[in-house]
Amino acid sequence: MLRIFQSPPRLRTALRHLSRARPPAADPQPWFLTNRGALSRQLHVGADGSRSSPTAAAAAAPQRLPFSRVTVEDLAFFRKTLPGRTITDPDLVQSSNEDWLKSVRGSSEVLLRPQTTQEVSQILSYCNSRNLAVNPQGGNTGLVGGSVPVHDEIILSTSLMNNILSFDNISGILTCQAGCVLENLTLYLEEREHIMPLDLGAKGSCQVGGNVATNAGGLRLLRYGSLHGTVLGLEVVLADGQVLDCLSTLRKDNTGYDLKQLFIGSEGTLGVITAVSILCPRKPKSVNVVFLGCETFDQLLKTFQLCKGMLGEILSAFEFLDSECMRLLNTHLKLPNPISDCPFYIVIETSGSDSNHDSQKLHNFLEEAMTSLLVTDGTVATEVSKVKALWSMRERVTEALTHDGFTYKYDVSLPVERIYQLVTDMRRHLGKRARSVVGYGHVGDGNLHLNITSAAKDPALLASIEPFVYEWTARFHGSISAEHGLGLKKRNYIYYSKSRPAVALMGNIKNMLDPKGILNPYKTLPDDLRRT
Amino acid sequence: MLRIFQSPPRLRTALRHLSRARPPAADPQPWFLTNRGALSRQLHVGADGSRSSPTAAAAAAPQRLPFSRVTVEDLAFFRKTLPGRTITDPDLVQSSNEDWLKSVRGSSEVLLRPQTTQEVSQILSYCNSRNLAVNPQGGNTGLVGGSVPVHDEIILSTSLMNNILSFDNISGILTCQAGCVLENLTLYLEEREHIMPLDLGAKGSCQVGGNVATNAGGLRLLRYGSLHGTVLGLEVVLADGQVLDCLSTLRKDNTGYDLKQLFIGSEGTLGVITAVSILCPRKPKSVNVVFLGCETFDQLLKTFQLCKGMLGEILSAFEFLDSECMRLLNTHLKLPNPISDCPFYIVIETSGSDSNHDSQKLHNFLEEAMTSLLVTDGTVATEVSKVKALWSMRERVTEALTHDGFTYKYDVSLPVERIYQLVTDMRRHLGKRARSVVGYGHVGDGNLHLNITSAAKDPALLASIEPFVYEWTARFHGSISAEHGLGLKKRNYIYYSKSRPAVALMGNIKNMLDPKGILNPYKTLPDDLRRT
Repeated sequence: MLRIFQSPPRLRTALRHLSRARPPAADPQPWFLTNRGALSRQLHVGADGSRSSPTAAAAAAPQRLPFSRVTVEDLAFFRKTLPGRTITDPDLVQSSNEDWLKSVRGSSEVLLRPQTTQEVSQILSYCNSRNLAVNPQGGNTGLVGGSVPVHDEIILSTSLMNNILSFDNISGILTCQAGCVLENLTLYLEEREHIMPLDLGAKGSCQVGGNVATNAGGLRLLRYGSLHGTVLGLEVVLADGQVLDCLSTLRKDNTGYDLKQLFIGSEGTLGVITAVSILCPRKPKSVNVVFLGCETFDQLLKTFQLCKGMLGEILSAFEFLDSECMRLLNTHLKLPNPISDCPFYIVIETSGSDSNHDSQKLHNFLEEAMTSLLVTDGTVATEVSKVKALWSMRERVTEALTHDGFTYKYDVSLPVERIYQLVTDMRRHLGKRARSVVGYGHVGDGNLHLNITSAAKDPALLASIEPFVYEWTARFHGSISAEHGLGLKKRNYIYYSKSRPAVALMGNIKNMLDPKGILNPYKTLPDDLRRT
Repeated sequence: MLRIFQSPPRLRTALRHLSRARPPAADPQPWFLTNRGALSRQLHVGADGSRSSPTAAAAAAPQRLPFSRVTVEDLAFFRKTLPGRTITDPDLVQSSNEDWLKSVRGSSEVLLRPQTTQEVSQILSYCNSRNLAVNPQGGNTGLVGGSVPVHDEIILSTSLMNNILSFDNISGILTCQAGCVLENLTLYLEEREHIMPLDLGAKGSCQVGGNVATNAGGLRLLRYGSLHGTVLGLEVVLADGQVLDCLSTLRKDNTGYDLKQLFIGSEGTLGVITAVSILCPRKPKSVNVVFLGCETFDQLLKTFQLCKGMLGEILSAFEFLDSECMRLLNTHLKLPNPISDCPFYIVIETSGSDSNHDSQKLHNFLEEAMTSLLVTDGTVATEVSKVKALWSMRERVTEALTHDGFTYKYDVSLPVERIYQLVTDMRRHLGKRARSVVGYGHVGDGNLHLNITSAAKDPALLASIEPFVYEWTARFHGSISAEHGLGLKKRNYIYYSKSRPAVALMGNIKNMLDPKGILNPYKTLPDDLRRT
């Protein structure tokens, strides 16, 4: 039977603090600095519809393309344009050269910190004319090596572009510069009874421009949808310095092609986002969290369906973890299971405008879920500290994994009824070669985080995992990158999720907007499309 | 005080029936077949930021571009490819040559009705090689002349592509061919406890492919957002016949540029949408409608704010009409005002999963709105027939206008606090030259329908309205086409809402995807971008 959560409040505050220093979802093994054997340069769909396996072991750093090198004259221009904000001290540039996972490291010698769109325009116009490569950088919290230079690209940081430009309390439309930190926007809006339509573990350091450039997903996507729907306008500086003003603050605008969409998820390869306008929902007045146990994944999916019907408009998250995740939480973090042992656990969050109504809906749903034997045990939290404690069972899985050994991490999306099948198939496929094979993620979004651990880095194990995981995902029309993007690390795996004509069209768009290819080279587009 | 609506149920069923034959939002005056004096070919933003007024009176039909003419050999190819579905009988082609407003009429002699993507691909590949222009056509319910040929373009109808391909009851993701009629999809989904995320007056004949191609808005946008967020995947045939398969059925996919976005709202100028996958919400279990009166537009906006806060997640529509609209409803349709006379009227709809909760939220909101004197009178309906009756006060304004004389119709979006100012400014500007100047629309979306009537067509009055209305809209960064698109009629007004670099980029995208310009020529892009 259901019981109210009794354990002392978990240290979610401490976790939050931690998350400002580094986002929780981690991929701790170095990728770019090591050899991995499964780049898919030759991946393609054959005439008979079959996919050939990747054969090229092209794991080394992509060759530097023939961009110009920064000269004394270039530095003089930058210093004149950005006095005091042209950084060349190697110690200061260093932290912008390396991603927070410490897995990718560039060798840039110049970090530029513009404050205005005009300055960004001047810099790009100059770099384009000089054929200098540029790496746009927001909060540098990405997970796929997209936010740091690969070679000596000039780092163009949006950190000083952090002004809120306007907020319309009636429509809920916020307009701000790209460098605003997500958490600062959240705090600003909370004072005005609104919230951002997205929430991420990295919110303490990630920037809204980077969020948009990478089409960040996160915890609120189930409720408020993707940035393709919530972003209303963008201001973008193109590779040649031209300012593209699509900074509309309108909910509806059908005057021609919706150009801003091109830049959402383009990972800085098509232009530098300098300002964003975004539709912000009202702040919910009541939040509840439930932790449930299920015997089978099929029951979990049925619970999801029941939940969508009975919680309806107040459902804001439906997450899951398996018993292997729970074992790691127990073993490595000493987090006790708040309910009895089950093969699967669900975290449900509701957000609404009336706490009595929300509790009643939740109560009705739980009663139905129990009487129909979909769930076997569960606990509910409404107090803030207990809500946080229950959330930590889902949020700290990543942390628990880091204590289990070397971790191979995958972030795939699949038709929701398939997501756990990949875990069981992988478990069967790997047998005793893996220490742990665990699955958790966003059921509501069909987004699985599959993690595999071993005692140490194990090239033979990796060869068993890849391309198996990508081929499996492709077979069921899934996405090999649900929310992290392609960046440097996954660029050559694109053909598992996109057809050749689609990738070719991406290349045409890149050539149209950035004919010299100076913007974030070596990222997002596969090597076979790039000029050499 | 609030009273329950007592009048007999309005004839919404009849209206619905009517709407299958023709969408309710009408623009009855012929545009393309007459002379209008304000095409903005020379409109541009000057170096000082000022906009010059349109000077060219280029209202005549655009010149036919040098496409090939259909030959006997072409017809033989079409008949071989589409046996029995290549229509050349002038009587049968006629209805596809003319838009439902009877304002635009083409002279095509060939109507093609493919059933499969492969057939669309064969046709476009052939037409592209032969330099034959093609007019893709869905339900032909558009309001801006985008859905019919201008000259002798071959009409490519998606009407026979009307199969539902799949529906996933867990995720709510529907996949179907482009020619599925919106109402049929709605009925299909309702049996499965879901709804389409969009609802339009034209639902009895409009097709989902056309909805996506024109980025249709409609009544549910406030709640479920635009098609840029709800459309998950598209299959598109490009001008050269290449099939672009982006028919993802995933909520999350960050593998490169989101190419499908290019085609949402491109009005058939970049490719022919052949299949759509779309995220469908659960069917609400309870629906309420409220009709309220306000003394000022400022109070109406405050009511909107209060409403967003107190109804929160169950708010599904917030519409308004002014006292002039009410006068027309009373005078021309004999619809009695369900409440006492007020300067402004609001229609609020709630949709939720629990009727008791919804009623209680509504009650609390109404009590607060009344005690704080934001609204002066109102009535509530929960029964289906009364809900329909109240909705008809908003939905039949268009019909009432058609009885008031010749109507000049505008569909603009503006920052929500500005939307009524345009009506009062226009009223002041026109003085006694207009018979009626009325405003109504979607407050929640910042979308105003401004309508001006006169005894008969009046070129002097038109010259007073335009470019005044466009300049006014542009001054407040509004959109001159909120939901109807540009099509043929508004293509040359684009510069009022888009910068020159943005329009130039549109041109580059068009050239990239359709270098011969065979797809829906003369539409969406302004004349100054088109080849001559």
